[in-house]
Amino acid sequence: MDDDIRPGEVAVTPPAATDAGLVFIGRIHTPWTVRGEAPRQGHPDGPVCRIDVFEPWIPALDGLERCARIEVIYWLHLARRDLVRQCRASDGLVRGTFSIRSPVRPNPIGTSIAELVGIEGGVVLVRGLDCLDGTPLLDLKPERKPVVPPP
Amino acid sequence: MDDDIRPGEVAVTPPAATDAGLVFIGRIHTPWTVRGEAPRQGHPDGPVCRIDVFEPWIPALDGLERCARIEVIYWLHLARRDLVRQCRASDGLVRGTFSIRSPVRPNPIGTSIAELVGIEGGVVLVRGLDCLDGTPLLDLKPERKPVVPPP
Repeated sequence: MDDDIRPGEVAVTPPAATDAGLVFIGRIHTPWTVRGEAPRQGHPDGPVCRIDVFEPWIPALDGLERCARIEVIYWLHLARRDLVRQCRASDGLVRGTFSIRSPVRPNPIGTSIAELVGIEGGVVLVRGLDCLDGTPLLDLKPERKPVVPPP
Repeated sequence: MDDDIRPGEVAVTPPAATDAGLVFIGRIHTPWTVRGEAPRQGHPDGPVCRIDVFEPWIPALDGLERCARIEVIYWLHLARRDLVRQCRASDGLVRGTFSIRSPVRPNPIGTSIAELVGIEGGVVLVRGLDCLDGTPLLDLKPERKPVVPPP
C-alpha cells in the first residue's frame, strides 16, 4: 500500500488540524489519475491542465489574464500528514520532511508556478502543473516579481 | 479601520471554511508589527527573520540546512477572506483578488522564497520575508528546481 511506512520513516501523533480552516475554491483537472504517474515537478512544456474555479470566486479572476505566469496553490488531499522523516522514492534516502518537496507534510499544501494559457469564465487553462486530477484548489496569484538587484 | 471596504470593492458571503483543517507548525518573527509597515515583497537583502518550529515537527528540519533557498508558507491570520474585488493600496485601482498578491483572499496563504541563513535546533533563520511578526507557519520546503530547457 502506498501509505505504508518504509524503513527509517518516522511518524508522529500530530496535534488536531484545527488552527485554521480552508475552503476549496475550485478543482484542478490534469491527465494524471494515479499517484506515481504525475511528474515530480511541472514543466512549462507539459500538457494543458484545466482549473475550474467555483462560485462565488469567479469574479476574483478579473485581471489575472494579464499575468503570463501564475502561482497555483492546492491541497494535496491524498497525502498523509504525520511523517517527520520520510523516504524519497527517487533515491531511497531518508530525509526530514521539510527538506524535500514530497506531498506528505503536516499541511499538505502544494505550490506551482504555471504558464497561463487562457481564461474563459471560471475556467483557467495552464501548463506546468504536476498534481493529480481532482486536486482541490486553494488559491491563484500572480507570480512573484523577480528580485531586482540594487543599483 | 483597516478592514473597511473601499469604493469598488466587492465582498461575498463565503462558504464555511471547513473543507480541510490546518495545524500551525511554528511562528515567524519579523521586525514588522503593524500592517502597512511590512514590505510589499521580501528581499534577499532584507533583515534576518526567525522562524520557530514547534514540536513534534523539529526532526522534519533534518537536511534543510543543505538548501540555499527555501519556500516558506504561512497563514495570513489578520486578513479578511471575503473580497472578490479589492482596491490595491499602491495605486488605488480595483482588481480581482486572484490578480494581486494582497493578503486578503479566500484562503489567506502567503508564500515566499527566502535565503537560508542558518538552522539551530528548532530555529530557522532566513532573509527575504515580508510578513508580520507573529505570523503562523504552515510549511517549509526546498525551493523548486529551476526549469531546465530541453536540449
